[in-house]
Amino acid sequence: MFSPIPIGYVKSPYDDTKQIPKGLGVKHEAEGVLEILPEFEPGLADIEGFSHLFVLWVFDRADGFSLVGGTPIDNRPHGVFSTRSPQRPNPIGLTVVELLRRDGRSLHVRGVDMLNGTPILDLKPYLSSIAPEKLRRGWLAEAEMRSRSD
Amino acid sequence: MFSPIPIGYVKSPYDDTKQIPKGLGVKHEAEGVLEILPEFEPGLADIEGFSHLFVLWVFDRADGFSLVGGTPIDNRPHGVFSTRSPQRPNPIGLTVVELLRRDGRSLHVRGVDMLNGTPILDLKPYLSSIAPEKLRRGWLAEAEMRSRSD
Repeated sequence: MFSPIPIGYVKSPYDDTKQIPKGLGVKHEAEGVLEILPEFEPGLADIEGFSHLFVLWVFDRADGFSLVGGTPIDNRPHGVFSTRSPQRPNPIGLTVVELLRRDGRSLHVRGVDMLNGTPILDLKPYLSSIAPEKLRRGWLAEAEMRSRSD
Repeated sequence: MFSPIPIGYVKSPYDDTKQIPKGLGVKHEAEGVLEILPEFEPGLADIEGFSHLFVLWVFDRADGFSLVGGTPIDNRPHGVFSTRSPQRPNPIGLTVVELLRRDGRSLHVRGVDMLNGTPILDLKPYLSSIAPEKLRRGWLAEAEMRSRSD
């Protein structure tokens, strides 16, 4: 395998997981900054041409993993690989952010759902989307339907 | 940080990177299997309800990293975080696959672009897409335009 290293850290408005919006249909519109370490700045060349980025990061305040558990969206338990739970065998988070502007090694972005100080592992350009009519969203769609009929 | 562990391995038709389709507008339609290790099978509960998954995996045959380099798509150099190059500070790959069917701890998928035997780090449900009209694709769109005018 390999030894993960931080390429930078997230500046986010959230210092506590309780502050992060959760639940059905939540939109992450919070702005934040991806502060890339000086030694990795050359890797940012041309990134400003992309409107959206994948951010891979570490759930550095999660402790251990749980293969089946509840979620803030649905009190029924689900397998961890069917959820975005922080309690994963490899505690890696994935967020799609909109790149608002680049200021040197600071990437100003919209859509952060990470805690302030979260270590960043990687950035990748978001290149294409699955057409919405082709997406099935499993238990999440069912939970939405149940909540509408409540 | 954390110590990455494999949750399973990819069965893919590709034994050599030369076999993996590359270049502008390439579509990854190859079928493969995500073989999850027995001890992680409970984490797959409910995954069959999702049509598409994010697969996080390790570029286990990449050696070191390069912050700026060429790509198979464009001979102009780009920053590594603007590309999907395997030579990354953290050698993590990200692929969106279509889940065709689940057979126990074998997930049959379409869209593999990994080598046979690649270690899998994580699976997450693909829940939403960025509307195509909102996506800007930077140097990649420029390279496509140049190739059309050649």
